[in-house]
Amino acid sequence: MSESTSVGTVPVSELVERFGTPLYVYDGARITEQFRGLRDRLHPAVEMFYSLKANPNVSICALLHSLGARAEVSSLTELVTAQRAGVPAEQIMFLGPGKSHYEIAACLKEEITLICESFGELALIDELAEGLATTARVVLRVNPSFAVKGSGLTMGGKPRQFGIDEAALLAADDLATRHRHVRLVGFQAYMGTRFLDEDMIAANTERILELAERLGAHLGVPLEVVDVGGGLGVAYFPGERDLDVAALADRLNPIFTRFHDRYPATRLVMELGRYLVGHSGTYAVQVRYVKESMGERFAVADGGTNHHMAAVGIGSFVKRNFPMRLLNRDSAAEGVKWNVTGPLCTPNDTIGKAVELPADLAPGDVVGVERSGAYGPTASPVHFLSHGYPAEVLVHDGEARLIRTRDDVESMLAAQILHDFH
Amino acid sequence: MSESTSVGTVPVSELVERFGTPLYVYDGARITEQFRGLRDRLHPAVEMFYSLKANPNVSICALLHSLGARAEVSSLTELVTAQRAGVPAEQIMFLGPGKSHYEIAACLKEEITLICESFGELALIDELAEGLATTARVVLRVNPSFAVKGSGLTMGGKPRQFGIDEAALLAADDLATRHRHVRLVGFQAYMGTRFLDEDMIAANTERILELAERLGAHLGVPLEVVDVGGGLGVAYFPGERDLDVAALADRLNPIFTRFHDRYPATRLVMELGRYLVGHSGTYAVQVRYVKESMGERFAVADGGTNHHMAAVGIGSFVKRNFPMRLLNRDSAAEGVKWNVTGPLCTPNDTIGKAVELPADLAPGDVVGVERSGAYGPTASPVHFLSHGYPAEVLVHDGEARLIRTRDDVESMLAAQILHDFH
Repeated sequence: MSESTSVGTVPVSELVERFGTPLYVYDGARITEQFRGLRDRLHPAVEMFYSLKANPNVSICALLHSLGARAEVSSLTELVTAQRAGVPAEQIMFLGPGKSHYEIAACLKEEITLICESFGELALIDELAEGLATTARVVLRVNPSFAVKGSGLTMGGKPRQFGIDEAALLAADDLATRHRHVRLVGFQAYMGTRFLDEDMIAANTERILELAERLGAHLGVPLEVVDVGGGLGVAYFPGERDLDVAALADRLNPIFTRFHDRYPATRLVMELGRYLVGHSGTYAVQVRYVKESMGERFAVADGGTNHHMAAVGIGSFVKRNFPMRLLNRDSAAEGVKWNVTGPLCTPNDTIGKAVELPADLAPGDVVGVERSGAYGPTASPVHFLSHGYPAEVLVHDGEARLIRTRDDVESMLAAQILHDFH
Repeated sequence: MSESTSVGTVPVSELVERFGTPLYVYDGARITEQFRGLRDRLHPAVEMFYSLKANPNVSICALLHSLGARAEVSSLTELVTAQRAGVPAEQIMFLGPGKSHYEIAACLKEEITLICESFGELALIDELAEGLATTARVVLRVNPSFAVKGSGLTMGGKPRQFGIDEAALLAADDLATRHRHVRLVGFQAYMGTRFLDEDMIAANTERILELAERLGAHLGVPLEVVDVGGGLGVAYFPGERDLDVAALADRLNPIFTRFHDRYPATRLVMELGRYLVGHSGTYAVQVRYVKESMGERFAVADGGTNHHMAAVGIGSFVKRNFPMRLLNRDSAAEGVKWNVTGPLCTPNDTIGKAVELPADLAPGDVVGVERSGAYGPTASPVHFLSHGYPAEVLVHDGEARLIRTRDDVESMLAAQILHDFH
């Protein structure tokens, strides 16, 4: 069995036999490598928070926590997931523009730091903290006046639902004392997503630290926590290259050092989602039919965009393919262009458009979409055509473990209620 | 309580109190009106099949079946749903480009007609039918050589994963006799989606009937079933207008009459999904926070594109808003532009961009996205940020009935498995 037909150390044929397809397989060694590669190089004062939204599986979170990751969560379920994965309260932060009363109250009861995104939310946190006779620990999310380039999705310098405009914060002179049950402890800003340029990330980080310092001084907010966001990318498409972690640390560390020397007690936070888990994942689908239509080859597989919507081509109106390969065998056949499609009844259900795969691709073959560990099934319409959530497996220390069971007819219908209309 | 603050006959305030938000509410009277409006006018030989993919809830299917609808399904779960809703086998057809062995075998055991999409599938159906000592009833899906205009998504005249190219069928002279355990009984073609022009639909239908006649004669396939597809649209956006059902029937009936006069024994089939349920649905979200950012107003709601991805703007790269309104009260305030966003951590989570709503919109208000009965939560990434599937309610005969329970922390985590990595 060659390297190209294994995930981690386990042959794909074995995974498919044990767990079936469609299947998400995550390579724990790759997650470990991503975490340690940065952790070992990054300034020790910087805490690495895993953003569960990238992949909220409890075992993925537990693996990352065993390596030293903390947790950044954005819903009650993500909070409970992090807790079940063993992350203690002081290592969890809750972020998100639309927090519910329940979510805020849960954070207050567990003494979890809230990253607050609006004046309205701040007032609500204060009110709920008063009701619970406690004091909320709150980091303010800032929507900076400056924008940055080099990101797939810019967050600064535009009207946004996230954070409080920098100008509005500067005008809120009494903010630190306005809410008796809130203790403001610092600032967060998040500049964008899918950054693949080390200099850009360093420049962002520097500006966010400068912003926090300026706002802290102006508003009288102590800098107990400064969260510089994240947005570190993964190279998916032709022409992109992965971040060089050594170069990244070389750029970032002097910036963190200068800040840390002036504010040695400040907890510095980086949020990392896609960067930690993106490379680790392979979405494995089995070919059910091959066909030709008007001169093009199609491989119709058992899974598609219902499980992997990003494969339609994120951040672009032009279809770009994720890296894909034949997983279950080696083939000496020449590479030809295939359209790899899924089981949905829409032509948009294409996970690979004119992607090069062996000419002898046939029913029963397993094709993998690589670098699919982040924003996979949870960011996809898994209920479409009622096919349901795929199985998820984590390969770690030579062992493949099921971490999420596959939906079936009964699990898909369990929550529906049949009424009689006759 | 005014008309504008009720769904069906039930006040929204009552629905929100009973079922919470975010909530999908379907108006059974509107579904009935859509079905009967067409049924009462359409040629009686035409059978109306409900495409469950548009909204696969078992009670929606049961309501439509009680009105006379048959069922077009595309997965094992949809098949079981239709059966539980009471649809008998002879009124079900199974369609889809990537059918599994299980799905085909289930159809064979239940004597359900299969709409076959490739030569490979036809061979597999034959093989499985032989194993079950039965004969499969198969309708061939054709990818026509001609294309049509006026659809949101064209299906003919292009390389596609769907159906068998017309040219390939014409070249397959021995098709009717090649597979001993398959009985070919007719043809299907599906020309596109979101047609809003009556003349276009009529022209399509005429061409598909002509195609079926030509292929049947050439291949020696009896025309027991001709399925003219569907793709009837719903007006969502400014500048679009709904189909005029009387005009549509006036255009279609002469075409069906001419065909029926020549082939009185042929079952004529129309597939209807969006058209039957699209108007009926309202996605109701509660405003949690209002804020301003750089001169724009934002209402951050408890649900967003995680439940209603189409609201991002289907079939267009330019954001277009679904019709939206304030649901829980009447407001005399002037209408101003609001961005209505959801709980996700991405600026794309915008269900209404610069949509006109009252200036006094405030936390606690309920905003509805109308015409959202088709391709709602099942076509959306409901697991994103682990918020889960919303509740669904069907209002019918003055009664609001829960037809799908809301996900909660435990239901979201039930399928996950925690391993220990310490």
